[in-house]
Amino acid sequence: MNSLQHDALTTHSLTRVHAHEAYHGVRSHSLALAAPLSAEDQCLQSMTEASPCKWHLAHTSWFFEALLLIPFLPHYRPFDEQYLFLFNSYYEALGPRLARPSRGLISRPSLEDVHLYRRHIDASMHRLMDECTEEQWEEIQRLMQLGINHEQQHQELILTDILHAFWCNPLKPAYDAQYPYPGPEGRAPPRPAVINERSGWADFTGGRVSVGCPASDQAGAPFCYDNETPRHDVLLPSYQLGTRLVSCAEFAAFIDDGGYRKPELWLSEGWAAVQAHEWQHPAYWIPDGLSGWKVFGLRGVESLDGTEPVMQLSFYEAAAYAEWAGARLPTEFEWEAAAHDVRLTQVAGHAWQWTRSSYDPYPGFRPMAGAPSEYNGKFMVGQLVLRGGSHATPSGHTRPTYRNFFPPGARWQFSGLRLARDLTC
Amino acid sequence: MNSLQHDALTTHSLTRVHAHEAYHGVRSHSLALAAPLSAEDQCLQSMTEASPCKWHLAHTSWFFEALLLIPFLPHYRPFDEQYLFLFNSYYEALGPRLARPSRGLISRPSLEDVHLYRRHIDASMHRLMDECTEEQWEEIQRLMQLGINHEQQHQELILTDILHAFWCNPLKPAYDAQYPYPGPEGRAPPRPAVINERSGWADFTGGRVSVGCPASDQAGAPFCYDNETPRHDVLLPSYQLGTRLVSCAEFAAFIDDGGYRKPELWLSEGWAAVQAHEWQHPAYWIPDGLSGWKVFGLRGVESLDGTEPVMQLSFYEAAAYAEWAGARLPTEFEWEAAAHDVRLTQVAGHAWQWTRSSYDPYPGFRPMAGAPSEYNGKFMVGQLVLRGGSHATPSGHTRPTYRNFFPPGARWQFSGLRLARDLTC
Amino acid sequence: MNSLQHDALTTHSLTRVHAHEAYHGVRSHSLALAAPLSAEDQCLQSMTEASPCKWHLAHTSWFFEALLLIPFLPHYRPFDEQYLFLFNSYYEALGPRLARPSRGLISRPSLEDVHLYRRHIDASMHRLMDECTEEQWEEIQRLMQLGINHEQQHQELILTDILHAFWCNPLKPAYDAQYPYPGPEGRAPPRPAVINERSGWADFTGGRVSVGCPASDQAGAPFCYDNETPRHDVLLPSYQLGTRLVSCAEFAAFIDDGGYRKPELWLSEGWAAVQAHEWQHPAYWIPDGLSGWKVFGLRGVESLDGTEPVMQLSFYEAAAYAEWAGARLPTEFEWEAAAHDVRLTQVAGHAWQWTRSSYDPYPGFRPMAGAPSEYNGKFMVGQLVLRGGSHATPSGHTRPTYRNFFPPGARWQFSGLRLARDLTC
Amino acid sequence: MNSLQHDALTTHSLTRVHAHEAYHGVRSHSLALAAPLSAEDQCLQSMTEASPCKWHLAHTSWFFEALLLIPFLPHYRPFDEQYLFLFNSYYEALGPRLARPSRGLISRPSLEDVHLYRRHIDASMHRLMDECTEEQWEEIQRLMQLGINHEQQHQELILTDILHAFWCNPLKPAYDAQYPYPGPEGRAPPRPAVINERSGWADFTGGRVSVGCPASDQAGAPFCYDNETPRHDVLLPSYQLGTRLVSCAEFAAFIDDGGYRKPELWLSEGWAAVQAHEWQHPAYWIPDGLSGWKVFGLRGVESLDGTEPVMQLSFYEAAAYAEWAGARLPTEFEWEAAAHDVRLTQVAGHAWQWTRSSYDPYPGFRPMAGAPSEYNGKFMVGQLVLRGGSHATPSGHTRPTYRNFFPPGARWQFSGLRLARDLTC
Repeated sequence: MNSLQHDALTTHSLTRVHAHEAYHGVRSHSLALAAPLSAEDQCLQSMTEASPCKWHLAHTSWFFEALLLIPFLPHYRPFDEQYLFLFNSYYEALGPRLARPSRGLISRPSLEDVHLYRRHIDASMHRLMDECTEEQWEEIQRLMQLGINHEQQHQELILTDILHAFWCNPLKPAYDAQYPYPGPEGRAPPRPAVINERSGWADFTGGRVSVGCPASDQAGAPFCYDNETPRHDVLLPSYQLGTRLVSCAEFAAFIDDGGYRKPELWLSEGWAAVQAHEWQHPAYWIPDGLSGWKVFGLRGVESLDGTEPVMQLSFYEAAAYAEWAGARLPTEFEWEAAAHDVRLTQVAGHAWQWTRSSYDPYPGFRPMAGAPSEYNGKFMVGQLVLRGGSHATPSGHTRPTYRNFFPPGARWQFSGLRLARDLTC
Repeated sequence: MNSLQHDALTTHSLTRVHAHEAYHGVRSHSLALAAPLSAEDQCLQSMTEASPCKWHLAHTSWFFEALLLIPFLPHYRPFDEQYLFLFNSYYEALGPRLARPSRGLISRPSLEDVHLYRRHIDASMHRLMDECTEEQWEEIQRLMQLGINHEQQHQELILTDILHAFWCNPLKPAYDAQYPYPGPEGRAPPRPAVINERSGWADFTGGRVSVGCPASDQAGAPFCYDNETPRHDVLLPSYQLGTRLVSCAEFAAFIDDGGYRKPELWLSEGWAAVQAHEWQHPAYWIPDGLSGWKVFGLRGVESLDGTEPVMQLSFYEAAAYAEWAGARLPTEFEWEAAAHDVRLTQVAGHAWQWTRSSYDPYPGFRPMAGAPSEYNGKFMVGQLVLRGGSHATPSGHTRPTYRNFFPPGARWQFSGLRLARDLTC
Repeated sequence: MNSLQHDALTTHSLTRVHAHEAYHGVRSHSLALAAPLSAEDQCLQSMTEASPCKWHLAHTSWFFEALLLIPFLPHYRPFDEQYLFLFNSYYEALGPRLARPSRGLISRPSLEDVHLYRRHIDASMHRLMDECTEEQWEEIQRLMQLGINHEQQHQELILTDILHAFWCNPLKPAYDAQYPYPGPEGRAPPRPAVINERSGWADFTGGRVSVGCPASDQAGAPFCYDNETPRHDVLLPSYQLGTRLVSCAEFAAFIDDGGYRKPELWLSEGWAAVQAHEWQHPAYWIPDGLSGWKVFGLRGVESLDGTEPVMQLSFYEAAAYAEWAGARLPTEFEWEAAAHDVRLTQVAGHAWQWTRSSYDPYPGFRPMAGAPSEYNGKFMVGQLVLRGGSHATPSGHTRPTYRNFFPPGARWQFSGLRLARDLTC
Repeated sequence: MNSLQHDALTTHSLTRVHAHEAYHGVRSHSLALAAPLSAEDQCLQSMTEASPCKWHLAHTSWFFEALLLIPFLPHYRPFDEQYLFLFNSYYEALGPRLARPSRGLISRPSLEDVHLYRRHIDASMHRLMDECTEEQWEEIQRLMQLGINHEQQHQELILTDILHAFWCNPLKPAYDAQYPYPGPEGRAPPRPAVINERSGWADFTGGRVSVGCPASDQAGAPFCYDNETPRHDVLLPSYQLGTRLVSCAEFAAFIDDGGYRKPELWLSEGWAAVQAHEWQHPAYWIPDGLSGWKVFGLRGVESLDGTEPVMQLSFYEAAAYAEWAGARLPTEFEWEAAAHDVRLTQVAGHAWQWTRSSYDPYPGFRPMAGAPSEYNGKFMVGQLVLRGGSHATPSGHTRPTYRNFFPPGARWQFSGLRLARDLTC
């Protein structure tokens, strides 16, 4: 099943009733994700790029406070002035903030205090939804959709970040043996399909295609981020895509063939990373006996299931694998143009898929107005686009035009790959 | 009052009854020190040199387990084999261990688990004290004294380390507004004496003096660490010592006089540190208005009391201050020879005092036998000796021959200074 | 004048006579560029990214030796086996090599030895041109063109690298007061045109345009690098380009307006760089009095000429300036499609122009076969494309399809910018 | 032969005739040491701790200029104002200076310019010696002795620094196949004695001994540095010293026995260095075949002569070896008290000998007055004392009271060890 259709909850022009529901659903889900974690767990920051779960819970609340409650709710007073400093992530326009590497040092406020903070924000948000004027509603519902999607992004980060922290613990604790959970709508995220047969190729004829989203200020436009806009045409060559993601067994064959020891397969920066970090396999893989592997994941250490999509890859590793396989990574537009094609499986719900596209602005790109202008645009250099969505991506959060992005060396995300090839007639 | 007399609890040849008592007293005190801290607080590691409180609680237990229970208690099985890895600090002979900078990543075992571990160790230790043979007792009580003193050292580190972690938190939380606590014997550590008058000088005539401790394997010898042995004679010049510690008000005058901007006052490495870290005052001092200061301590942020001894100094700052004051730091032997002199105040119980002595071995130094050989000797390079004892040093833990040591740039200890001068007749 | 036309010397299907000439011209020019530098100067490496002049002289010789003489010249023996190690830059397929940061430590071989090496290579190359078979010639002339273009690239680096090294010298020595020199054909590189009037805008109507070069293995195709191929179509929006480059006076106005202190103008990584390196102006600018500037260049320190194109900019600074100016950087294809337009000045011969395009592979990109496969392709991540050409780019070396590339933080190149804007009808 | 007697040239109260001679001898010798090196060689700085030969030649001249010519020679004008910045090493009182790591970037002034500078200084110095008043002479000759000894120290550094630079060159060039040279007085430095027999032990009875030098402002006192003063008494235990230095063959046995893999032999910081730098043998040793060694030195790469004293050791390695050998390093006073004993060989002229003494000030230490106060005193932390003198120490420069010092990790000096043991009766 392809889970990339737009979700009713995130369409434009949210009614107030839907807004209450959608807000409540997302907020509850964050707490459900944190539930298996102790207060100690939720305080951990295992590297600068990752954040403590508690910080995610607070920051997503701060986002509603800073963008909605303070500007729009009459007589609103911040829950705690210092939280505006502690839980601002990177918004220069919204004041100074705690240095990112220090997020793990914030044992106070306690988790309990953060729960109080969330409840305060929630009550105030529901009040705002009830009490704001009709004139305000248009902008409020637009910012609420942003806040809801923002919290969904952090829901995935809660899982990737705690997984990294637990990986650093020699005990290799499980996040939850029962993972994955049902989503907020009661749908369980898809378990990776068992695929034993070799992947096939689907052909796509090149030509002019439209990509991206209409700007969300157009009437009836579904929600999307500014980095997906404006919708525009691109020219594609004819190409092939792998019908499924590269599997763990396939990646193990790359390792067995000396993939991590052959510089000719790697981009120059990638080869430097292999040597500097002594990479010999994907992150969280554990050699097991002569040629076997275990893998660490949210359920703890398990035997590697060769049929599952390989994950925890950097862009460098994905590109080296593709080179070894006589193929290449798809561009983000090749991927997008094919996202609805029924021949493809594992389009979303399994792993984010590195593309061969740098995260550059679309022609005519304009950041959102106001503070949200810093949301996406200022990161448009030095990153690569990932498409699709992982098992940890909240239901309804992704779509064919969605542009996820990370630096090429990032390995702590649920990031894998789908192969592409030129189609030469 | 000079609190440097030897405590009955730590003399050699502990009887079993005293051993039960002493062990219990020290173990309870560690928990009392941790009591004001949440589980989240106890998981914090704010820099490589510091450790989480939870780790201190576990490591001091591991010490008894590794040195006493495993070798001596019949049929003893480790509480958890993995704890031997997690909570070994630096004993190469006792197996591999968790890298020091990772101590803050150990959210599991939970604080609760560590409490269970402590209870298991305690029960086993009391059993060992009851059940061991008379032949074993001599060695066991010797190692127990070491373990008890070891835990006392970590009691001070619990406080210095959490203070550093809280300093990194913009909320600047207080450890406990009621600090200091009564010690295990019900004696409150001395509050810094109020000293308004200028410090005086006490003269000491040079000559041959004995320093250090008799080796503790001599009959009737009181407990001491191997680094205090052997007792030996040194020649001292005639000298003067300040009758009290340098006060905050005096140090503030050094700052006001541009002390942190005059390279001629500093050792070369010290001046490099001033520039690299942009030091402008002792650690934990907070500029307050035009010429005032606040200071952060275990009771949180308070106005600076100019009569209190200055603390949180690196050796470099102590040495620069002494230079500015037309004096110098005492050598460790000048300090030791004068420690019982009634003219001196604030000898212990206020602040550790940097000396002008590198931490070198005494002539004829032999490390303790077995695993404890790594306790002190292997750190005898690159460190400076501090003498005395701070308000956080457990009662009975220090003595005139005690050699504390830290690298010259360390500022997170309760470290101040006493001036010395040559006495030229 | 627009110096982007293809030069006769670098067209495909070089005859042997032309090859002798072209080779000799380029080789002589390298020595002419090195002539103002002492042996000491030529040994300097002032940062990892830069190389000593002597190393450039030797490496460009090694390139001919490794790719042409060893494979093609019968009985050829390397001048010195160790040079194969010392002067390989980054070709994994051609064996191990000296670590890049160590290039400045090679006082031996001496400059004199390197001159002997060059003469040996030159004599051998001329022999190869004379003696190779007709069957070999096709491949040899193709590799010779690569070698010649390779050496031309290093000719620009000789100047950028020594300029950086001299910048690090407090004496700020001039490379040559007479720079710029006549090129190998006796043509002087254009001096920056004096432009006092404000820049205008030239409009370009969007649509489908062809970009890139035909693959050079097509008959009659002019020389180009593999990264410019294959030629393919892209869709462009309608846009405007500045008719000239941004001038120093314009950039000074950005500085005066606090450009380096306004995070909202900067990409996130760029703002981090501003803070980390305390950038306050372009590299090599020297504040002079209250609001004036001097600038350091190949002629030494001179007063800033506000009419000259600003250079020594990182991509971050170029992008921040464009943001401040209410404009943006052009994409590499917007630039290329307009390169022949007569309304534009300073297209080449003044400064490389940062584009808003990441250095990604073209659709259907295939690296050159054999060792040259490492020439360009493996750097296609983490870099931005620059177009045009600077005053230091050898005559005939650049063209409208030429893709220069550097990491976004690089400032030691002759890199400036031309503005672009969306053309909304 | 024991070369530690005081040399007539460096006694106190130099006559003018002797001063001319001594000055000329030392200045000529510096040039003789630089003679085998090309201008390129003399520009090399291979690590922050080392300096280019050209810089040594200029800095030693600057020392005479700044301390003697500018203060004392009427109408003297600095050769070049900028040299005062370029060639000041670390004298805060004498103005700002070039950052140490940038010394290798100074291709200008050229070596030729530095030779001109030296000649200018020399002519001016001879004029100063001729023209100064009798009243001035006392201070001038005192500062000249300092300057002469200063230049001698740099003569050794010229050799150790170029040796490190050449070690970094894969060609491993020889400084001079004919090294060692005759000294300024025509005496050749002693070649290491061939010692095949096992080292013996010499016993020394403890007691009170005088160490250090009388302050050089006492009439008739020989020259010494301030760090050797004041002369004072210390108490020594009874001890043994090895009659010769530890040889390469002995050190090879330590390696063969796994010395670099046994943490129990190492100080904690030393073991960390072994792991961080992957030390497996002394610096400049090159494994040769199964169990053989070559060694790189001033004559280039040679077979290891097992009878020569081991050198290029850090303090950590020296201490680990001593531990392995069941011995220890001597303290600096044990060494000094025995320096004239005829049973000891290789006291000086072979290798500096690490002692177990930190570089602390002597009781009553006072730095020299004025700018020279920064010469020694400000480095008295974080360093260890070495005694003796190496084959590269200029003749007459060392003496039994001489305190050389380096950080414990330094390996690029000619530093070895002599064993010591407690003598227990």
